[in-house]
This record gives sequence, structure tokens and C-alpha cells, in this order.
Amino acid sequence: MLGLMQDWPLTVDKVLDHAKAWHGDREVVSRSVEGPIVRTTYAAIHERAHRLSNALKAMGIKQGDRVATLAWNTGRHIEAWYGIMGIGAVCHTLNPRLFADQLVYIINHAEDRIIFTDLTFVPILKGIADKIPTVEHIIVLADADGMKGVDLPGALCFETLVEQHGPEGDWGGFAETLPAGLCYTSGTTGNPKGVLYSHRSNFLHTLVTMGTDVMGLSATDTVLPVVPMFHANAWGLAFSCPGVGAKLVMPGAKLDGASVHELLETEGVTFSAAVPTVWQMLLTHLRETKGTLSTLKRVVIGGSAVPEAIVRGFRDEYGVSVTHAWGMTETSPLGTLANPTAAIAAMDSEAQLRFTLKQGRPPLGIDLKLEDDAGKRLPHDGATFGKLKVKGPFVVGQYFRGDGGEILDAEGFFDTGDVATLDGHGYMQITDRAKDVIKSGGEWISTIEIENIAMGHEKAANAAVIGAAHPKWDERPVLLVQLRPGQSGTKEEFLAFLEGKIAKWWTPDDVVFVEDIPLGATGKIDKKLIRERMKDYVLPTAKSVSA
Amino acid sequence: MLGLMQDWPLTVDKVLDHAKAWHGDREVVSRSVEGPIVRTTYAAIHERAHRLSNALKAMGIKQGDRVATLAWNTGRHIEAWYGIMGIGAVCHTLNPRLFADQLVYIINHAEDRIIFTDLTFVPILKGIADKIPTVEHIIVLADADGMKGVDLPGALCFETLVEQHGPEGDWGGFAETLPAGLCYTSGTTGNPKGVLYSHRSNFLHTLVTMGTDVMGLSATDTVLPVVPMFHANAWGLAFSCPGVGAKLVMPGAKLDGASVHELLETEGVTFSAAVPTVWQMLLTHLRETKGTLSTLKRVVIGGSAVPEAIVRGFRDEYGVSVTHAWGMTETSPLGTLANPTAAIAAMDSEAQLRFTLKQGRPPLGIDLKLEDDAGKRLPHDGATFGKLKVKGPFVVGQYFRGDGGEILDAEGFFDTGDVATLDGHGYMQITDRAKDVIKSGGEWISTIEIENIAMGHEKAANAAVIGAAHPKWDERPVLLVQLRPGQSGTKEEFLAFLEGKIAKWWTPDDVVFVEDIPLGATGKIDKKLIRERMKDYVLPTAKSVSA
Repeated sequence: MLGLMQDWPLTVDKVLDHAKAWHGDREVVSRSVEGPIVRTTYAAIHERAHRLSNALKAMGIKQGDRVATLAWNTGRHIEAWYGIMGIGAVCHTLNPRLFADQLVYIINHAEDRIIFTDLTFVPILKGIADKIPTVEHIIVLADADGMKGVDLPGALCFETLVEQHGPEGDWGGFAETLPAGLCYTSGTTGNPKGVLYSHRSNFLHTLVTMGTDVMGLSATDTVLPVVPMFHANAWGLAFSCPGVGAKLVMPGAKLDGASVHELLETEGVTFSAAVPTVWQMLLTHLRETKGTLSTLKRVVIGGSAVPEAIVRGFRDEYGVSVTHAWGMTETSPLGTLANPTAAIAAMDSEAQLRFTLKQGRPPLGIDLKLEDDAGKRLPHDGATFGKLKVKGPFVVGQYFRGDGGEILDAEGFFDTGDVATLDGHGYMQITDRAKDVIKSGGEWISTIEIENIAMGHEKAANAAVIGAAHPKWDERPVLLVQLRPGQSGTKEEFLAFLEGKIAKWWTPDDVVFVEDIPLGATGKIDKKLIRERMKDYVLPTAKSVSA
Repeated sequence: MLGLMQDWPLTVDKVLDHAKAWHGDREVVSRSVEGPIVRTTYAAIHERAHRLSNALKAMGIKQGDRVATLAWNTGRHIEAWYGIMGIGAVCHTLNPRLFADQLVYIINHAEDRIIFTDLTFVPILKGIADKIPTVEHIIVLADADGMKGVDLPGALCFETLVEQHGPEGDWGGFAETLPAGLCYTSGTTGNPKGVLYSHRSNFLHTLVTMGTDVMGLSATDTVLPVVPMFHANAWGLAFSCPGVGAKLVMPGAKLDGASVHELLETEGVTFSAAVPTVWQMLLTHLRETKGTLSTLKRVVIGGSAVPEAIVRGFRDEYGVSVTHAWGMTETSPLGTLANPTAAIAAMDSEAQLRFTLKQGRPPLGIDLKLEDDAGKRLPHDGATFGKLKVKGPFVVGQYFRGDGGEILDAEGFFDTGDVATLDGHGYMQITDRAKDVIKSGGEWISTIEIENIAMGHEKAANAAVIGAAHPKWDERPVLLVQLRPGQSGTKEEFLAFLEGKIAKWWTPDDVVFVEDIPLGATGKIDKKLIRERMKDYVLPTAKSVSA
């Protein structure tokens, strides 16, 4: 016997159908790559997405075919997304910050047949055009005028395609198990691996993120996704905003403090989402210009740990509430958010801050566990580190083409590669990446925790901690510091700064001043590169033991 | 090619698993049927539900078997729900307000094998015990002490079963397409028909209702579901509260103003949901006792149209925001909610009120259309009446055992039997039941609209409008008025009261004063019975025409 409710497959075309039917006049405002602010509506995006779908069908695109985008957040990018997904093709978001050889690898691995690109990225594609044989067409997100400057033989004009094709024709109507999106992990070890989202997983992620304790979006919100659509689906905002009827403000290519601030104020933005560096730029800009935030109420911050100074800055200087979030490409991406429980909401603001700075708790649809190296579950005591594993309907089951083999454990959990704690309130805190955590005398030391404290030193522009080989303890921490321009510093003053803030045995054995701390394509510290640069380094403490 | 995310069936056992894992200490407080307030937690409910599952399995209950509940909202009722659904059996909620012969029909139609009952309803079951042959066991929601007064041979004790069985054993792990719940429509025409919810439909309904623009629940909320679990699943609150980690306050059998007020205040309730009559009783009690509402922030009101005086009372006297909602057993039940869009939020409070009093707009997952008798789509102009049809993953596809045959139209929509308007903001307003709407000279007249206005007359205790045969116009409206105790009234003064508030041709041809306006099992006006009582009535205007 089966339940007798309607058969209504969870496919993402229905999200845009809903936006058109119930929020058709709601605006989508973009800072275009060409420069001017352009305005459209969900109804217009719906029609243009249908026209694009017909253009793709005319080019022979079928269900399951991969069609890529290499683009900033704009209304056109949304049209391309829904145009691709609406006919069952797979929208493959390419990260333009990747090195050219990584892009080549990913495009070939995905066998992309078409790439939509912004004008900005035409030179990248021109440089690799002869290395991506599966790509039949490149469509430039521009009008005929914009195409004049495009130096790429055979490139097609987005606006011309939209004009040439009508809006009628089949859309949606397929199984929810079909793939909808493809996004490759940044791949700090080995080749990038593809996460193949289904319509079902995207739709469920959308419903979950609409929850009050998750993203909590409303039709009354105006949302600025600074986080790019190529960075883990802009944390679902290109689905949840039309899903709820929020006004969308797309920042295009300009993510600096002044440009973001201008959009926040002129468009009446109430909600925004970005990585910490964007918010740091905004706060710096606001302080320099004595700017205000007159409509912004909430920001969601993820991608890396949020410095306490950012939370305090938003809260105390601008009255904006900060929600810390954690997720990854493999979790669609939202895994946890640090919205308060009743117990935490009852605490004073300083006590609450300790939880705001954690990565948060899982919504219904996400389950987490902590395990040790032997696969034993660890206590949720807020202190014990363990491997963080995750399970849920929008968590990866296997990578595209089976890369990496079986990636779920016997209970069906995916190993995030993060090391974390879970506390009695259900709050998770990332303490390190599993490959970065320092194993000293059988105990684990969190590099992130030391880095976050060291970055609070007024002379530090950036800081990183890595493990260095030690004959007695296996590994001991080394602190690398990039000083602010014009500053000088000593090992002693940085070690003194850490004293009392971390356990004594966590104290780095050395402090090394470096010219720069390298960042990867998603803005995180590239520890692989740091370890490579430091491969000949020997700890002073190791020398003394061996001496 | 399929998407490669995890296979994670949407089954409701996972809702309680989530509550246990992440909100295990969160309280569930009940006014027990025995009298005292009792306190438990989601973790304890989880364990006891598992013990009950094992008790049911020991009685031979298998997947798909129907197990009924005849019970008020209490923690034990929740344990019974999850104990039944957690092993794939079907939880059939019985409405104790039905007449005995309707209960007999429904129990036999469902072939219930077991009935959980409150002490309160033992006499009902004793009265029909020899007419429900499929029922093998009756389990009384009581402890051994409570059983002493139970006069029902063979009745089992709930607490004894919980004690006798351990918490270990299989739970969940089946397909999301399995049935989870069964609820019969009140059936004002023909026999009651069963709606067979699936795990998938219940889970999706839960996720949708957790949205900020829907029920908008948070872990920081304390929720009092006055709406019974036997009334369309308590509008999903028995799923969404554990799903989000809200504290639950269950009112048991006492739904009067004083009892509800006591719980609101002593338990710190922030959110509640009920039909208008409950809120009217509460407001009357508050005014009589000069009571206050110190923690309540929001109430959701559904089941029938909300009188303006209730919205104003909550808003202006107590600072509580009211959300009007519409739904039906066939929609799980939430279909629309009148949360504001950005355009409406920008209006002044009096202008907003016009929308607050409508039934609202559909969330993602619900689609609506208006049709005329010929199946043509009607405009969303806020004025044109039409048949309201609905589609979505938690809307009925067919009734249990195929009753009523094919109930979806060619586009897959279900006809709600309501007549409604849709306006340019996407707000739906019910104007009538299709079988009650008056067809006068080919045009439709809304009986509900006239009733709502007439009920605003200070002398009226209740009012109803029905159509009476007319030789020229086919039907003309008659207003029936039940006066407040001690009042007397005239036809002329009621017609004068309506003047200017409705179109002239809507003016009732007669006003009839009656001793009572009969209500059905769900508290709505029983127009079928009124029409029966009025079958010999002849319009004065009809007499004059025929004379």
C-alpha cells in the first residue's frame, strides 16, 4: 500500500514557475558586467529562461548533457541556470578563479558541450580553447553591442539567442532524480572531483534553507548574494530567493567594499551572504567613509571561520546580526548555521557570542557525527576533536564518474575532511582540516584556532600554522606571520600574545615571518603551497633534540 | 544519468530522530487528561515511541496496517503517533466530535486494528464496541491508576505497554512512498472520505511549513497547538515543532479561554494556532479578567474566516500578530497563509488589514488556480469568483480505496469545493463553498461575505445565509439570524445594517430569526442541516412574483 497524495516531482523548474506565478513583478537587479545597473523581474527571467531552453534544444542539448557557466552573479546568469536545468540538462558552474589547467581538466572531465561566459572571462576561454574539444559553443552573456569587442571565433551572443527563440515548449516534467547541477571541489589534494546535484537535492536544500532557523528568507527581504553562484550554488540563494519571492540584487563583478555598500544602500538590501574577506572589506570601507547600513538586518557568513571582530563590528557599530554558517560543495552547500536555540537566546550577548562564532547546528535534513580514527563515536562535549561526518538528502553520495570510489561509511555518512567539536547545545565548531591538524604526541592541535588568535595581533595581516616534523613529538606547530605593511615583529612578541589564550603545549615551537600567506581559488589559506614552500624548514626545537 | 546525492528517504521517523539528537532536552509540556501538568522531553518521547512501536509489533501490526487514535493533544498522543508511523503503520486520527455512526463508518472503512483512546472517549468506544469488528485492541492513554475507572472489557493500559517493551529494534528504514497517516474529511455530502498521507507528503509539508513566510517556527519558539491533532494533523505542528526544536505545550481537553490563557502565560508560549472560536473565547476571557499576554507573539488562525474584530483585538489590545491561513484535510492541511509580501508590508496598517483578512498566498509547493464552471481559467483581479483548485506534493491525489473516483483534473489539480478570488498580490480569499454559493440570475453571491458582515451586528450571536428558490432569479439569499440572549430584532434593522456594505443585488430577500445556527463536527456552520430545516420555507418575494 502506498500513500495517495499527488505525484509532484521535486524539480527546480517549479521554483521559477512559482516565482513567476506568485511574485512575477518582484525585481531582480544586477550590476551588469558592462557596468550599468539593469532591472528585470522573475516573470521576465522565466520567459527568457524558456527562450534559452529552446535555444539549447536547437543546439541539440538533451537531458543529462553538461552545459557550463563561467560567470559572475547577474540576472543573465540566473536565466542561463534555469534555461539549462529547465530541460533536464546539467548546469556546470565553473570557478573563474581556478588556474587555467584546472579549468581545462574540469571542462574535459565534465565533457561540457556549451559554456556560457561573461565578457570578463572571454580571455580565459580563448587561452584554453584548443584544449577543450567537447565544447561545441561558447555563448557570451552580452548583447550585440557587447559582442563587438569579443575576440573569440564562433562565439555566440546571448541576447541574440534569446531573441531568436520563442518561450513556448516543454519545460520540466521529468523525474526528480535527474541531475540538475555539477560543481567541482577545489581539490587541494588530487584532481578536482565533481558533485552532481539532483533536482531533488536542490529542491530539498531550497526548502530547508527557507526555514526560519536556516536562511530564514521572506518575501519582504531584499537579498544580495555576494557569494558567487560558482561557489557552491551561491549557498542556494538563486533557488531560495525566487522560491520565496525575495527581491534579488546581483553584484556582478564588483565585490569591493564601496561597490557592495552602494548596492546595499541604493537597493534597500535586508539580507546578504558572503565569505569573511568580503565583510572585512565592507567594514573597512564603512569606517573609512563613515558609511551607514540603513536597511541591512542580517548577514550570513561562511566559507571560513568568522573573525570575532567582524561579528562585533556588525553587531555593535551597525546593528546587523551575523549568522555563521558552514557547508561545502558536497553539502549543496549548507550544513550548519549558528542561529540560537532557546537556551542560547536566553544568555547575555557576550555568552551568546561564544556560540555565534561556532559553525552552528544542523537543520532537519542534516545529521552529523564525530568519530575518532578508529571509527568510534566521540562525545558532544564541546572539547573532544574528531572527524566530522555528514548525512542527508542533499549530501554527496558519490562523486561524478565514481571518482574517489566509495565515499560513504557503513552508516551512510560522508567524511567532510574537517576536524570539529560538537557541544551540548548541538553546536559544531570546525577546529581544523583533517589534513592540517597537527598530531603532537598522539594529541591533536587545531591550527585554525591558533591562526584566528594570531590574526588578532595588531601587526598581523595574515597568519597560518602548519605542523613541522619533530623527532620526539612527531609534529610541532610553526606559526607563519605576514606582517602589515611597514611593520616589524619578533617571535617573542607573538608567542607572548598567544600566552594564556591557548593550552601551553599548543604554543608554536617557532614563528616565521613571511612576505605573503598564499590563498587558494576560494579565498582560503593554501596550506598545501605553504607546506611546499616550507619543505626544507627544520624546527629549532628539532635541531636541539637531535643535537 | 541520475544525480549522485545520498539516498535519504523522507520518512517522518527522522523528524523525531532529529529532535532527539539535536533538541533532546527540549520540553514537551501537557495538560494531561487526568488533570495535572506533565513534563517530558523529545528524547524521552523518542524512547517511549520506540517502546510503543515494539508493543505494536508484538500485537502483529505490520507496515500499512491502520492504527487509530481518538485523543486530545498530549505528549502521549505524540508518542502514539510516532510509535505507529515509525514502523510504517498508518496513524488514523479519529475526530471525537463526530456522531457515533460516522465514527463506526470510518473505523470500519479504514479497518483499524487498534485504537488508542483518551480516558474521556472510553464511553464513546464502549457504545460502538460491537459495531467495529476489525478492532482487535483498545489502548487507553493512561497509567495503571487511571485504568481503574475504565469500564471497557479487554482495554489495555498505555503505560503498562510502554514499560513492558524495550526501546531497541528496527525503526524507519522504509520507502518514503509508504502511507503514514489517514484522516477522513468531515463529509457534509455523502460518506466521509479518507486522505492517505505518505511519509513523503508529511515530510515535505513539514519542511514547507517551517519556512519564514509559512509557520516560521524557530528553536526559540514555545508552541501551543490548540488545533487538535485529529483536525488535519494539528496543521503539521506535531512534526514541525520537533523538526525545529520548539518547546511544545499541549492543551489536553481544556480549550476554554481560561485554560488556554493559563498555559500561554505559565509556559511562556510565543506561538499558537487555532480556529477563530477558540480565539474569540480567549479574547472574551482576557477582557473579563483584565488578563495579559506577556510572551505570545504570533497566532495562526484557520479553519474558517477570521472575523476582523479578532485580528484587531489581538493587534491593538495585546500586540499579537495574526496570520490567517487556509487549508483542508486534503492539503495536509496548509494551502495558503496571509503573510505579507514586500508590497503589502509597505502599506499602512489599515490597508494591510484588508490582506490579513484574506486567506493568503501559496508557499513554494502549492499551486492554485481559479476556474469557471466550464473549466476556463479566471483572472487574478481580486473580484472574479471561481472554483479554487490546488496542486502540490502534499495535496490529495485520490481518496482511500478510490472513493469518489478520479478527483484530479487534466492538469492534475484537485477541486477544493471552495469558491474564491485571487488578487494581483497573489492573495486568495474564500468567498463560499461551491455548494453554498447562491446563483442569482446567472451571477454568484457569496454567502460567507454577507454572514461575516451580519455577524458584526451587535444583536447577532450568529448568522447564516442560504439560497432559496426564486421563480425569476433561480435563487435569492435569505439571512438567518440567531440573536444574542435577551435581544429582539427586526428584518428592517438587519437589512439597513447591510446597506452600503454589499452590492445592492446581494441584499437578502428576507431575514429569518432562528433559535440556533447549527454547527458541524469541525465547528463550521452546518448548512446542510439548515437547508433541511428550511425546506418548506418560501421567499416572500417568490410569493409576490407567483401571486
